[in-house]
Amino acid sequence: MNRKLRMGMVGGGPEAFIGDVHRKAAVLDGGVELVAGCFSQTPQKSKQMAAPLYLDEASCYGSYKEMVEKESALPDGERIDFVSIVTPNNSHFPIATAFLEAGFHVVLDKPMTSSVEEALALRDTVKQSGKVFALTHNYTGYPMVKLARDVVKRGTIGKVLKVIVQYPQGWLIRPIERDGVKQAVWRTDPKFSGAAGCMGDLGTHAANLAEYVTGLRIAEICADLGTVVEGRKLDDDGNCLIHFDNGARGLLFASQVCIGELNALRISVHGTEGGLRWRQEYPSDLHVFAEDGTIKTYRYGTAAIGEISEAAVAATRLLFGHPEAFFEAFANIYKNATDTMRAAIEGREPTELELDFPDVDDGVRGMRFIEAVVESNGQWVQIPTA
Amino acid sequence: MNRKLRMGMVGGGPEAFIGDVHRKAAVLDGGVELVAGCFSQTPQKSKQMAAPLYLDEASCYGSYKEMVEKESALPDGERIDFVSIVTPNNSHFPIATAFLEAGFHVVLDKPMTSSVEEALALRDTVKQSGKVFALTHNYTGYPMVKLARDVVKRGTIGKVLKVIVQYPQGWLIRPIERDGVKQAVWRTDPKFSGAAGCMGDLGTHAANLAEYVTGLRIAEICADLGTVVEGRKLDDDGNCLIHFDNGARGLLFASQVCIGELNALRISVHGTEGGLRWRQEYPSDLHVFAEDGTIKTYRYGTAAIGEISEAAVAATRLLFGHPEAFFEAFANIYKNATDTMRAAIEGREPTELELDFPDVDDGVRGMRFIEAVVESNGQWVQIPTA
Amino acid sequence: MNRKLRMGMVGGGPEAFIGDVHRKAAVLDGGVELVAGCFSQTPQKSKQMAAPLYLDEASCYGSYKEMVEKESALPDGERIDFVSIVTPNNSHFPIATAFLEAGFHVVLDKPMTSSVEEALALRDTVKQSGKVFALTHNYTGYPMVKLARDVVKRGTIGKVLKVIVQYPQGWLIRPIERDGVKQAVWRTDPKFSGAAGCMGDLGTHAANLAEYVTGLRIAEICADLGTVVEGRKLDDDGNCLIHFDNGARGLLFASQVCIGELNALRISVHGTEGGLRWRQEYPSDLHVFAEDGTIKTYRYGTAAIGEISEAAVAATRLLFGHPEAFFEAFANIYKNATDTMRAAIEGREPTELELDFPDVDDGVRGMRFIEAVVESNGQWVQIPTA
Amino acid sequence: MNRKLRMGMVGGGPEAFIGDVHRKAAVLDGGVELVAGCFSQTPQKSKQMAAPLYLDEASCYGSYKEMVEKESALPDGERIDFVSIVTPNNSHFPIATAFLEAGFHVVLDKPMTSSVEEALALRDTVKQSGKVFALTHNYTGYPMVKLARDVVKRGTIGKVLKVIVQYPQGWLIRPIERDGVKQAVWRTDPKFSGAAGCMGDLGTHAANLAEYVTGLRIAEICADLGTVVEGRKLDDDGNCLIHFDNGARGLLFASQVCIGELNALRISVHGTEGGLRWRQEYPSDLHVFAEDGTIKTYRYGTAAIGEISEAAVAATRLLFGHPEAFFEAFANIYKNATDTMRAAIEGREPTELELDFPDVDDGVRGMRFIEAVVESNGQWVQIPTA
Repeated sequence: MNRKLRMGMVGGGPEAFIGDVHRKAAVLDGGVELVAGCFSQTPQKSKQMAAPLYLDEASCYGSYKEMVEKESALPDGERIDFVSIVTPNNSHFPIATAFLEAGFHVVLDKPMTSSVEEALALRDTVKQSGKVFALTHNYTGYPMVKLARDVVKRGTIGKVLKVIVQYPQGWLIRPIERDGVKQAVWRTDPKFSGAAGCMGDLGTHAANLAEYVTGLRIAEICADLGTVVEGRKLDDDGNCLIHFDNGARGLLFASQVCIGELNALRISVHGTEGGLRWRQEYPSDLHVFAEDGTIKTYRYGTAAIGEISEAAVAATRLLFGHPEAFFEAFANIYKNATDTMRAAIEGREPTELELDFPDVDDGVRGMRFIEAVVESNGQWVQIPTA
Repeated sequence: MNRKLRMGMVGGGPEAFIGDVHRKAAVLDGGVELVAGCFSQTPQKSKQMAAPLYLDEASCYGSYKEMVEKESALPDGERIDFVSIVTPNNSHFPIATAFLEAGFHVVLDKPMTSSVEEALALRDTVKQSGKVFALTHNYTGYPMVKLARDVVKRGTIGKVLKVIVQYPQGWLIRPIERDGVKQAVWRTDPKFSGAAGCMGDLGTHAANLAEYVTGLRIAEICADLGTVVEGRKLDDDGNCLIHFDNGARGLLFASQVCIGELNALRISVHGTEGGLRWRQEYPSDLHVFAEDGTIKTYRYGTAAIGEISEAAVAATRLLFGHPEAFFEAFANIYKNATDTMRAAIEGREPTELELDFPDVDDGVRGMRFIEAVVESNGQWVQIPTA
Repeated sequence: MNRKLRMGMVGGGPEAFIGDVHRKAAVLDGGVELVAGCFSQTPQKSKQMAAPLYLDEASCYGSYKEMVEKESALPDGERIDFVSIVTPNNSHFPIATAFLEAGFHVVLDKPMTSSVEEALALRDTVKQSGKVFALTHNYTGYPMVKLARDVVKRGTIGKVLKVIVQYPQGWLIRPIERDGVKQAVWRTDPKFSGAAGCMGDLGTHAANLAEYVTGLRIAEICADLGTVVEGRKLDDDGNCLIHFDNGARGLLFASQVCIGELNALRISVHGTEGGLRWRQEYPSDLHVFAEDGTIKTYRYGTAAIGEISEAAVAATRLLFGHPEAFFEAFANIYKNATDTMRAAIEGREPTELELDFPDVDDGVRGMRFIEAVVESNGQWVQIPTA
Repeated sequence: MNRKLRMGMVGGGPEAFIGDVHRKAAVLDGGVELVAGCFSQTPQKSKQMAAPLYLDEASCYGSYKEMVEKESALPDGERIDFVSIVTPNNSHFPIATAFLEAGFHVVLDKPMTSSVEEALALRDTVKQSGKVFALTHNYTGYPMVKLARDVVKRGTIGKVLKVIVQYPQGWLIRPIERDGVKQAVWRTDPKFSGAAGCMGDLGTHAANLAEYVTGLRIAEICADLGTVVEGRKLDDDGNCLIHFDNGARGLLFASQVCIGELNALRISVHGTEGGLRWRQEYPSDLHVFAEDGTIKTYRYGTAAIGEISEAAVAATRLLFGHPEAFFEAFANIYKNATDTMRAAIEGREPTELELDFPDVDDGVRGMRFIEAVVESNGQWVQIPTA
């Protein structure tokens, strides 16, 4: 299949933030081109994106339904190969379902849906469709997160005993949703975001990261959510005690009101033979702790990585000391997902490396996590692990 | 009063660790000399300390009762002025009581007693005695901890909203108490340590630090304690959700089984106007977060400190960039406590700066903390704030 | 001009490293598409790039001369708008000259030429052509480097007194050029690299960074170059004393043989009122020193940046805490250079922000720097500042 | 010999800084007591120190000559065992000579003398006297510096190729010597400090550290000294190219006018098999670089240290994660020097560990270093290695 994959987008209009991230991430490696989109529910706003994105206005649809219909009518090679959905959470479910049922591969922003029920239904649709479905838990795209996972998998730190995962931010310390800041408006409104605010936006990333790195599942949770900014309808801060399915204990916390924290996703894992630590804001380093008290720092792109983790090497574009960061990690989700789409198109089995991207099962787990933390209210609740 | 204060010690024999720390810390500033001690309950072992400490064997007593009796019989200026008690937790109460009742000032290692009841009784004894009583929650002796407290007090970070305080260690990951390692033996034995292991040894420091820096009190706690090493009788790991008396939420965790963590007491405080962070292992820096995204790092011994905190300056012996560390922080507890003793001896009121050391009320709170975390077992329990 | 700019490339064939970086950087922001190239001097190898780059074989030329000729013959909008030249240093001059004379804008990898004479001739050609010419001293594309420059420009650190700039790497500690590692082969061969090895490859970046941040010019230099790996024909390590044109003193060093250093470009600038520090490997932070001993850390994408530096904000794609790195900094050179090309095409004056990219004068200075360090041999030599 | 060593002091009066450091460092380990001193050349000021130091006024002498005479007349066990000399540089030579000739052991602050001639004469006196002579190049007392030395000695980093050693400070950026700040006055006055300012005060520490860690000798130097503050009579900033006696290249720089630098002694050493880095301001960590790109961080007081360095363990008082700092490193010089004195008094050979302190030969090298950097003036000069 010697052409670029044709990408469509739903969402990502004039004031959006994450849409542009998806667009840049998708094209970084040169195998994808954006060819169509429904960038806004307001047809005129959608068409406004034609010029800055160098698209035909005809490819800028006024509704996702129109997009599904018209793209479906085009011949193969002229219609989109897959769609990226970057709308607020509440619309994920119908849009993703429509594209899957029309036979398109889907990349979907997280959290996956508005409820566990929708998540389970979407999972069924994905499985029936046979299409590739990727959820952009983008932080697992970082090479050093893959290395961390592989360090654990190798047994270097032994059996996991304790996990501390945190994701504090501070940008919602003021009620800027009342000033109409779009990023704040939908994130603090249950109509768009669902039952959880901070825990849906950030907590799900933290939970996903913890499960990805450890290979474990969070089995029980005791959550203490709060709303610091008066009048806000959803949690903007929360702390959780967690138990994993192997008996390990942990802490998970997230916040949108910690001044000084920018996007501070961090994880520490301690086991019977060692430990490790990684921070998203300084993503090039992975620290691995040995029982003799030394810390071994693995750095991005160096020979030592290759000895441990094929996946981390595959996720790396540059040599040592030339840092890659957020866009490149995000692009790794796209790279693996679109390579898997190519495999589907070419009729071959995808490799294990290509399949290394978050999928619909991760999405279901995210929704179960949200359900559990909202239900908990300071009591222990169990999370089904399937 | 132009002579060095005369110090006695109970505990701190041949295999002890913390006794030597107390001795070095006490003499660092030149105003104290060690003149007597009951260094072991075994009289012969106690006398073995005479040579290495350059003491007369006659001043090395075979029991603390003998010590109280004989020292009391000496004339003023020949007997000890105060005693440092550095024995395992279970003997703190009777020994401290005996010396206080005999009219000696007391410095006591933490946690204060074996139970809340003992703590309350000791508080009464202290108050009745009129003697100076200091508890070595030594981490509050660090200049940058005092600066952190004063930054909060000034209002720089506004109303406190969230506190994360942690104290992980890793040295008890193996059952070394079974190999007779003395430091491990008493810490893991309820007979010596009381109802809590890790939470008594480390959690109390973390709780004390959080309260000292914020000026708040922990009002409620939901604790998830665990014992990772099989067969161990006390907790060696624990995570807690906490609520402060102003409504702030927080997390407190401690561990003795996190490989890679050495003595990693750390605190982050976030408020309505800013935040701060401090780490014991790199104690010279205090990071203060502003809402505009900048971090202001205050460094040990520089002019900026003086503008904010008289207490931090008073706790500093060297100029900028000449780091001070654990011994010096410990010595600051001794300095303030012994300056307060001198004030008592000289019949003057101690200054506010001199009175800046942990006292019997901190000890009571520590015991209440231990009682609460042990009782909690995953449920919320309240901690009386007085 | 509502279409993507059409980019051609010379160099960047199968085994190349930097060519792919240019390609990714150029397209990141969506305004450029790669449409043609002469990817190798071997026509067959050049055509091999058609498939992975999704190009027509017809657009993959067998020589740069063929490329100039054929592209020149195409109508506007079908021919390339600009060329990126990413060949070894020795061929920069003729290729760049040919494209400029044919009326194409040029992006050229550094160092600019093989000699000062070539550099001066190329400068004349650029000025006569009226075309946009950008040199990829990519490190000045980092937002925090722009902030550093603007902090100096504002006077925050006063008059510059001392600069320490360093660029150590370690990957050439073994004679891997003898194993045919392509990146090593041309860098250690005077035929391709010119008179300097490490100092041409790395030292020029360090010198350019120092001049960009301070706004000063290096006026005198005393260099101590060495070749650590036996038999290597060019310097692989060097230390320099430097004097700036305002009288400030400094140090510049670079190395390819420092094990443990990856790509460790770092700069510290100290002035009469403050100082600053930046490191390429952790590029999101800029540390600014105040005389009171505090360090103010500016972090990528936060409000504080906006108050100081329009250029840093313009160079930023993401919000706070979502790190950008090497590719994005590189892309900023392309962004400003291609925006300037668009201005030229549209017949308008480029803005100051658009013009913020390294140009032919920086290239001349780089060649003068190389000439000086090679000539120095432990003695002071002057560098003409024009 | 079961008593504390009796210490006398020359210097260290009311406004002194380093005298108090010596006093605290000397007594930290409990084996030394201060019993006498000539704390000032003004007899009255000397006697003023009696009260704060809890000494008899009779032991506070009015001149060092009186002190030598009167102490010499006392019987053994009542007179001082050794003297610590902490006066400005220019008086080191006569005072040290007088005490050595009277049969006292000597601890002397650095730099050792005012000239190479004095240094050589003092070396002769020390050798003839048979007394213990220690020079307080205190930074080599840090455990991690000893570990660094032992890592090099073991061959872990191979043959040393490159050394970067730096010692910037910033506190003399203003002409505070004109305000009478005593620490500034004598450091900037050639009458007290000798031929070099910054290079004598700081450069000698840097040179000593480089030689201690690498086991090499600086053989050639090309220095570029400057005086930033107008009217100051000595250098306050300087950069040097250096060559070691094994052919390794390096850089040494020091400054008193770098705002933002506090006491930033740092060293990096790169060899054929690895590298290492240490920083005085964060002294608990030693970073060792491997060729595979990993960094191994050794931390203070952990098991890994013990495997490599008996000397680092012997220099450590606390367990892991309980940081020690400047005073403790300083105390390690005293500990080893006074243990060596005890050996002399007891008539036994000191051990290799006890002899690990800077001696008169280090002092000679320091004076040769000063002579060379002052003579250099931008030209290469050789330093005799004996």
